Amino acid sequence: MAGNIFGNIFRVATFGESHGAAIGCVIEGVPPNIILSEKDIQADLDRRKPGQSEVTTPRQEGDVVEILSGVFEGRTTGTPLALLIRNKDQHSADYNDIKDVFRPGHADYTYTRKYGIRDHRGGGRSSGRETAARVAAGAVARKVLAFEGIRIVAYTLAVGDVRAEEIDLDAIDQNIMRAPDLLKAQAMIALVQEAKQQGDSLGGIVEAVVLGCPAGLGDPVFDKLEAKIAHAVMSIGAVRGIEFGAGFAAAKMRGSENNDIPVVENDKVKNRHNYAGGIVGGIANGDTIRFRVAVKPTSSIAKQQLAIATDLSSRHIEISGRHDPCICPRIVPVVEAMTAIVLADAYLIQKTIH
Amino acid sequence: MAGNIFGNIFRVATFGESHGAAIGCVIEGVPPNIILSEKDIQADLDRRKPGQSEVTTPRQEGDVVEILSGVFEGRTTGTPLALLIRNKDQHSADYNDIKDVFRPGHADYTYTRKYGIRDHRGGGRSSGRETAARVAAGAVARKVLAFEGIRIVAYTLAVGDVRAEEIDLDAIDQNIMRAPDLLKAQAMIALVQEAKQQGDSLGGIVEAVVLGCPAGLGDPVFDKLEAKIAHAVMSIGAVRGIEFGAGFAAAKMRGSENNDIPVVENDKVKNRHNYAGGIVGGIANGDTIRFRVAVKPTSSIAKQQLAIATDLSSRHIEISGRHDPCICPRIVPVVEAMTAIVLADAYLIQKTIH
Amino acid sequence: MAGNIFGNIFRVATFGESHGAAIGCVIEGVPPNIILSEKDIQADLDRRKPGQSEVTTPRQEGDVVEILSGVFEGRTTGTPLALLIRNKDQHSADYNDIKDVFRPGHADYTYTRKYGIRDHRGGGRSSGRETAARVAAGAVARKVLAFEGIRIVAYTLAVGDVRAEEIDLDAIDQNIMRAPDLLKAQAMIALVQEAKQQGDSLGGIVEAVVLGCPAGLGDPVFDKLEAKIAHAVMSIGAVRGIEFGAGFAAAKMRGSENNDIPVVENDKVKNRHNYAGGIVGGIANGDTIRFRVAVKPTSSIAKQQLAIATDLSSRHIEISGRHDPCICPRIVPVVEAMTAIVLADAYLIQKTIH
Amino acid sequence: MAGNIFGNIFRVATFGESHGAAIGCVIEGVPPNIILSEKDIQADLDRRKPGQSEVTTPRQEGDVVEILSGVFEGRTTGTPLALLIRNKDQHSADYNDIKDVFRPGHADYTYTRKYGIRDHRGGGRSSGRETAARVAAGAVARKVLAFEGIRIVAYTLAVGDVRAEEIDLDAIDQNIMRAPDLLKAQAMIALVQEAKQQGDSLGGIVEAVVLGCPAGLGDPVFDKLEAKIAHAVMSIGAVRGIEFGAGFAAAKMRGSENNDIPVVENDKVKNRHNYAGGIVGGIANGDTIRFRVAVKPTSSIAKQQLAIATDLSSRHIEISGRHDPCICPRIVPVVEAMTAIVLADAYLIQKTIH
Repeated sequence: MAGNIFGNIFRVATFGESHGAAIGCVIEGVPPNIILSEKDIQADLDRRKPGQSEVTTPRQEGDVVEILSGVFEGRTTGTPLALLIRNKDQHSADYNDIKDVFRPGHADYTYTRKYGIRDHRGGGRSSGRETAARVAAGAVARKVLAFEGIRIVAYTLAVGDVRAEEIDLDAIDQNIMRAPDLLKAQAMIALVQEAKQQGDSLGGIVEAVVLGCPAGLGDPVFDKLEAKIAHAVMSIGAVRGIEFGAGFAAAKMRGSENNDIPVVENDKVKNRHNYAGGIVGGIANGDTIRFRVAVKPTSSIAKQQLAIATDLSSRHIEISGRHDPCICPRIVPVVEAMTAIVLADAYLIQKTIH
Repeated sequence: MAGNIFGNIFRVATFGESHGAAIGCVIEGVPPNIILSEKDIQADLDRRKPGQSEVTTPRQEGDVVEILSGVFEGRTTGTPLALLIRNKDQHSADYNDIKDVFRPGHADYTYTRKYGIRDHRGGGRSSGRETAARVAAGAVARKVLAFEGIRIVAYTLAVGDVRAEEIDLDAIDQNIMRAPDLLKAQAMIALVQEAKQQGDSLGGIVEAVVLGCPAGLGDPVFDKLEAKIAHAVMSIGAVRGIEFGAGFAAAKMRGSENNDIPVVENDKVKNRHNYAGGIVGGIANGDTIRFRVAVKPTSSIAKQQLAIATDLSSRHIEISGRHDPCICPRIVPVVEAMTAIVLADAYLIQKTIH
Repeated sequence: MAGNIFGNIFRVATFGESHGAAIGCVIEGVPPNIILSEKDIQADLDRRKPGQSEVTTPRQEGDVVEILSGVFEGRTTGTPLALLIRNKDQHSADYNDIKDVFRPGHADYTYTRKYGIRDHRGGGRSSGRETAARVAAGAVARKVLAFEGIRIVAYTLAVGDVRAEEIDLDAIDQNIMRAPDLLKAQAMIALVQEAKQQGDSLGGIVEAVVLGCPAGLGDPVFDKLEAKIAHAVMSIGAVRGIEFGAGFAAAKMRGSENNDIPVVENDKVKNRHNYAGGIVGGIANGDTIRFRVAVKPTSSIAKQQLAIATDLSSRHIEISGRHDPCICPRIVPVVEAMTAIVLADAYLIQKTIH
Repeated sequence: MAGNIFGNIFRVATFGESHGAAIGCVIEGVPPNIILSEKDIQADLDRRKPGQSEVTTPRQEGDVVEILSGVFEGRTTGTPLALLIRNKDQHSADYNDIKDVFRPGHADYTYTRKYGIRDHRGGGRSSGRETAARVAAGAVARKVLAFEGIRIVAYTLAVGDVRAEEIDLDAIDQNIMRAPDLLKAQAMIALVQEAKQQGDSLGGIVEAVVLGCPAGLGDPVFDKLEAKIAHAVMSIGAVRGIEFGAGFAAAKMRGSENNDIPVVENDKVKNRHNYAGGIVGGIANGDTIRFRVAVKPTSSIAKQQLAIATDLSSRHIEISGRHDPCICPRIVPVVEAMTAIVLADAYLIQKTIH
């Protein structure tokens, strides 16, 4: 209701501000008897954390997770998992300058209008830092899905004008952009570094695929699988759009083309072009689920900008602090996490039917 | 959970199959003392109903709504509204041919895989007919919002390659495409008629704007306003993508451009380009909310297609029945309805804060 | 949220006022492929309906149910069931006298304070008539449970000072009080008729047992099975209390007595006295679930009473209309229905764990 | 759904096992700008914690709460509060003996049947220790309610056969039984000490009153205020029954008596006997809300008992460890907390109506 709890059966409640004591989450609905340790979660957190490379922020947050409950002798017990990540390396003083200013592109103004109070340090609850709790929850969701052979992979498809031409999933972890095309990754890196030097930032497109999703997951009408994934992924701070399968290109197609051609392989129905993106009528059809996400350029930039102060006067500001020139590589694990949470939930819901 | 209930406070439960006895909805959370009659709802239903023009299906469904509860002496009482629309003009026999076939582009295969049973007549629950219940609920949401001066307008921005160049909201109801550009509307109509003659269908783009939305609506983290709108709108059958403000174009922008330039007008903060689409950090900023929706071409086409039968053998089929060559004009009121439901809910949630 | 939707997976939304067009419900989460017809539901409705005997109201409401959706060729499809019961035999004029009076024991005053508007005809939404929708939903829940061998039986344990001494489940349908003791039933009937002649009414105690409930149903902490049953049953209009197993008598026991003595029978753990009422730690232990419900005397009585008018002046009133001198026999199927809804939900939730 | 999240707008997610790293909760929906510090919460926790007197367990748990998020410069921000209580003074070794035994009266058997795995140390999630998280959340709810002048007071009405005759709210904190009658408190203490010496335990009755609750709180049909309070309070481990106002005594009343006599005082409607317990038709009528709760005797007793081992063989056990001979004084703050959570939620829901 108030925005911090997500999911139906696999249900995640997150908390925490950028410069508060800690961030974390409580997850209920995790099936019992799953082998789980802090290492499983830490691996995903490390992919999201700042300070990984020259294309991300140099902040060193650490992001060490502690499991507070729900695991006994290395296995989940069916009771809620609480995951805690203490905040560290906070330069709260960096934010004193912006106490009385609404930063361009940030939620400073809207939080003030909504709540009548704002924790200005690092954006408070609106900081991208809250996504660490999502990634932690997503790591647990992935464990549930892995057991069913469902795998989720996201990658940086494009940055600015540079777009991957090849989709090689093995390439993703071999370059700091998390692009599926090693050659184009180099061009992306060059572009990001150029923007960084100019005190600017860049947007991009992240694509995700879900492999091994059984037909039948997802629900009719309001909780179509693409609707729930859209909800989950559009709730990530910098995301401005999402499209499934052919997406916006379908708007220019004819029905005879977009309907695709079904092919039976090993008693499974596949589709020649997979224009539907693996979901028809809101329900997975057994094909690869595929969607793309528009990521806006990071709002925090060093360049001087015109802003509005809390008294609504105009003011020029330069954002100090350490920020990501392009958030795509770090959004990749967040997109995977949110997708995993939706699919784990859909998987558990489907168990109630059969 | 099972997909038929939407919203938190303003909560809508819909029911009904294409060729069953009736469709309809129950709405709870409607504030008391709002003047409401069947006429208010019928007006919106008439905009969605089939048989309106040569660019839509010639089916004559009628779609007469009856308010069963929740209104006393012309005013809402705070108790649930039940809205009933009896089904009529059903040619169930039209569908006997497809009893054993999974129609291309339709949810026949996925429903079978999910439930192990399928009402094949007109697609059953997966039929676009269920959107009549959404439109009815949306009409009630609009009454709630109108009281606050919030207005939602959607229109056909593009069909195939033809895109509106002018956005004139007054033009929308003056052409059967519901386009905001009377000149381009003619080109769209020509294009649709050509596709229809070929037994084919066309996709398009629907754009929506929310005027008069106060700053502060929407929630942080998982229930960002764009996330809830995306959920709502992506749950409409033919929608394949959604983008807010600059949308996918933001992926090619720099932060210094995308952050936009704030302008104070009458003590309200506006933005020069409104690239954010009226929502920052998940919360409305008081500017116009703007998003675009990719609509796929109608799946039911007269042209012969290759399909899979229920025994997984291949088969050629021609879909008989009466179908929309382009669904955009009829999706317009559905997009408005779903947006209204989300905003009415956000408005009521915001009342709990102050 | 607004009180008209109940359950998590097996979820029921009800609507309708006493003197409106209709009452009914939408149920989602019903598993597919269950054989279901209107007859199944009508049988339970007939046990609740008015006009059954001299100990209930002589109103003849009929209560004929129509299934509007969710059933195809005699089987549930997994999509929502909508159940409609048209209102009939309404003597709305009977209520003109009480338009400006808050009837003693009724919700007239509280609805007015809550909503600022009140449908005074027959109590509107606060009428016991809304329980017909619960009974209809409960009939569907019972079908789900019957498949698992779970059976729910309620009965009138006591009326005024007369309490059943024998618990013979076969006797329940052989007497109009629905008591499990034919001898005591006669004494109950005599007592009720005496109260009726005096223009008065009587309270009583309804007991319910759940037979065949497998161990494991129910959840920890907030959604303990007894907590959910208490929620469900305490939401029935005339209910003033509930106790499980030993109940209030446990308050006078010592731990060594209340802990009960476990007995293994056919590899199942039972308990000598079943003081826990079949639920420990919120989870069914496989023993018979047993609880008792305090039912207040019907508020509508013919006797002259002192009431408050809408202008807060005092006034004497005599309630005309046709009312139940003792509601226990008609609450029996409602208690069964609400228990069935909770158990069907718990059963489906438990499927997500294994 | 899985039982660890409670409430609609004021929504609490708890976590933690008796002998895990920590227990705690996340609360969303707390209105912004409420002055709140750890001291406010600690005061309530100290009333619940073990080791307070000779009638409670001698365990010294400390229960020091840390606010991890949601408070900035001493005020709530509208974002979720996370409250953390580290576990201490755990004698896990005390529980080695019961690893292979299902303790009488405890949830050991039912958790095993539900989840297929059990954290046997101190009962794991089923331990009464989880109520510390409820009390912490309740303290926040009380702050919200205090602002509206709503006050909740619970007390030990009876222990075994000893029942308070006087209800003096000022007496409650002057005796270790938390009884409202200082004289009877002495008799209760004597009774508890006698049971303790015998290695046994005692049950009792806790009564709660809500003072200053405005008319209008609560909802119709399924979410009647008494239904939600019953859900909340029956979810506390040792509670076996609940009754409102006249409660089970109403079962023996006539309508003419139970309907009560309305009295207008200062433009407010009160009732001579308040048999309805302050709630009519599920909605508060502005009178004092009053209910009683049956508390079973503590299950952990030193006396030798017959138990079932995990292999279903019979075994005699003596529970070591330090346990409460009568849980009533420590349940008092838990009943207050759960009631506060329900009322805070009802208060926020009511804001959506006007």
